[in-house]
Amino acid sequence: MAETAVAENGSGGDANVVRVDLGTRGYDIRIGRGLLASAGAEIAAVLPGARLAVVADETVARLHLKAFSQSLTAAGLDHRAITVPAGESTKCFREFERLCDEILAARLERGDAVVALGGGVVGDLTGFAASAVRRGMAFIQVPTTLLAQVDSSVGGKTGINSRHGKNLIGAFHQPVLVLADTAVLDTLAPRDFRSGYAEVAKYGLLGDAEFFAWLEDNWQAVFAGGPERDEAVARSCQAKAEVVAADELESGRRALLNLGHTFGHALEAAVSYETERLVHGEGVAIGMMLAHEFSERLGLTGEDTVLRVRRHLTDVGLPVRVRDIPGQLPPAETFLDIIAQDKKVSRGALTFILTRGIGEAFVEKGVDPALVADFLKEKLEA
Amino acid sequence: MAETAVAENGSGGDANVVRVDLGTRGYDIRIGRGLLASAGAEIAAVLPGARLAVVADETVARLHLKAFSQSLTAAGLDHRAITVPAGESTKCFREFERLCDEILAARLERGDAVVALGGGVVGDLTGFAASAVRRGMAFIQVPTTLLAQVDSSVGGKTGINSRHGKNLIGAFHQPVLVLADTAVLDTLAPRDFRSGYAEVAKYGLLGDAEFFAWLEDNWQAVFAGGPERDEAVARSCQAKAEVVAADELESGRRALLNLGHTFGHALEAAVSYETERLVHGEGVAIGMMLAHEFSERLGLTGEDTVLRVRRHLTDVGLPVRVRDIPGQLPPAETFLDIIAQDKKVSRGALTFILTRGIGEAFVEKGVDPALVADFLKEKLEA
Repeated sequence: MAETAVAENGSGGDANVVRVDLGTRGYDIRIGRGLLASAGAEIAAVLPGARLAVVADETVARLHLKAFSQSLTAAGLDHRAITVPAGESTKCFREFERLCDEILAARLERGDAVVALGGGVVGDLTGFAASAVRRGMAFIQVPTTLLAQVDSSVGGKTGINSRHGKNLIGAFHQPVLVLADTAVLDTLAPRDFRSGYAEVAKYGLLGDAEFFAWLEDNWQAVFAGGPERDEAVARSCQAKAEVVAADELESGRRALLNLGHTFGHALEAAVSYETERLVHGEGVAIGMMLAHEFSERLGLTGEDTVLRVRRHLTDVGLPVRVRDIPGQLPPAETFLDIIAQDKKVSRGALTFILTRGIGEAFVEKGVDPALVADFLKEKLEA
Repeated sequence: MAETAVAENGSGGDANVVRVDLGTRGYDIRIGRGLLASAGAEIAAVLPGARLAVVADETVARLHLKAFSQSLTAAGLDHRAITVPAGESTKCFREFERLCDEILAARLERGDAVVALGGGVVGDLTGFAASAVRRGMAFIQVPTTLLAQVDSSVGGKTGINSRHGKNLIGAFHQPVLVLADTAVLDTLAPRDFRSGYAEVAKYGLLGDAEFFAWLEDNWQAVFAGGPERDEAVARSCQAKAEVVAADELESGRRALLNLGHTFGHALEAAVSYETERLVHGEGVAIGMMLAHEFSERLGLTGEDTVLRVRRHLTDVGLPVRVRDIPGQLPPAETFLDIIAQDKKVSRGALTFILTRGIGEAFVEKGVDPALVADFLKEKLEA
């Protein structure tokens, strides 16, 4: 479905290109160091003459907006910057309304585009606004975190949070182009880089044992920023692109991408999304551990699988146990309630991503809630 | 693309069925007198076992919710009613947020559905909420006005208004079923029935001269509520279904449906959407007249076409001249500004639906704004 190719880009550097094959909604993900400097040329090649609204949070605007804007101007692209507050609380109805209004105030027409320059929060909010303004504006993702580059900017899921839970309001709205500049990741805090790395490891664990083994050997170079980083981002995007192309609207196989996320989301909710205690990728890391341990408990895989996953996540500095989360946690019953309200529930039965070994995850519908309750109780008391 | 068939429905009455052919997103529009009483059985046939959130405004809830709810209960469908205020101002961000929250509070899961029981306002707001909650819930339209039955409930356009204009925020979200009970239209005020009728006449004018001639002969029976009403609704839905199936996302031919709407929307905006002065269908009626007169001015059609359209619209009691609108109107320049901000603008050029005769409308891009200005100035001073 998706293929990785090495192509020359306008700035003379090599860029990895991953194609997301969705027919008329298909698009390229371009990955490379320093891509921000040639972003204008890349965008002009896809949408010649388009006017752009560029959305960034205050932090990213301070770090990267000037360079990005210069690149747009150099390519002759008229644009207006719109700034939103930094942080998860920006994914709310009020900011959604404000952003839609600002995009309309910029008088963009059909054929123009909305650009998300930032991490997952800005990408999700901006993508939803782009889907809704005039019932759908062209949308470009310029992800500036590792998490956004390998996960949230690929696949078209957009949305905001409701008081009933995260990402419960949104749209499937595919971008027309994704530009991932891996040099931008040098400005990330180590904890944020690690958090994104949990999703990179996930792609190995869910379906590519060879990639997981490669990560075991090369993770230090990925963190340091060598060509291995570009390769890790490209292989992650390729893995996600294949799943998305096979199941755009998440009716089946795409659920595999939720490996570690059902437990992970419950942990995030249990700490009220206090990022001092737990960031998303840390929840995913612990969640992936729990998914492997639960699979072992069900006799689906052996202890060696669990040990290997734990060793790698520990090596890179990610948490692997519920008790690695600082502070008090609610009882197991609360976790089950949270999981039941999670949107990956179908007609009251619990759906989990389980595994038969490294790279062999599968979707299991109808998991017995009592088994999950016993397992969680034990883990919370461990 | 679409075909009209006569089929038996569960309650023993005859229903006209129009199929909207959109592949996996295709759906039936069922049209008939008294359909509300069998709505539960109709819905259960499409979504067996679904739980429903039923959205109605206060007026429709008082008139029709009890009968509708009884029909759902009789079919064993668990449901919860959600009431919104009546009126265009309900199509706002605040009600969108409240409705999304209420749908989530009802704990609907994938496979459940959101029902819009009402006119265009409730259909547009509810459809947008259905598109956004969990990134897309199944959606059912039960239109209770003529305008909604022949226009807004068909084709998947949903949305709310922004301070920059009407319907500027929304989604394309197709329903899974549309149930149009033509007996419900007996409860409409005559002015609201006439307003919906403007859209019925539009289908004849834009592409079906034979239908327009049929309406000239049969409009009194359509107003009175005989089988001619069902036929008029079915033929209108069929006309719209064909256009929608050919151009779901309005990239080309679907723009034909805007016959009379560019001028009509500008008139509505010019009176600040004060429905005491002008309701939507009245704006469309005057807009259709202007489109025919402008086409005559450009030498595209003859005076006989204009006279025939004017006679029919006048016969049914619709306004046909700008001066039929009570009170002061802004100057022609203001109208041009409004038209330029209309979302049917592409790269600064004006797009109009013009005609070569009854049933021969076409999309004309790049109309000279100066010609429109002169024409409007004359009409405003007439």
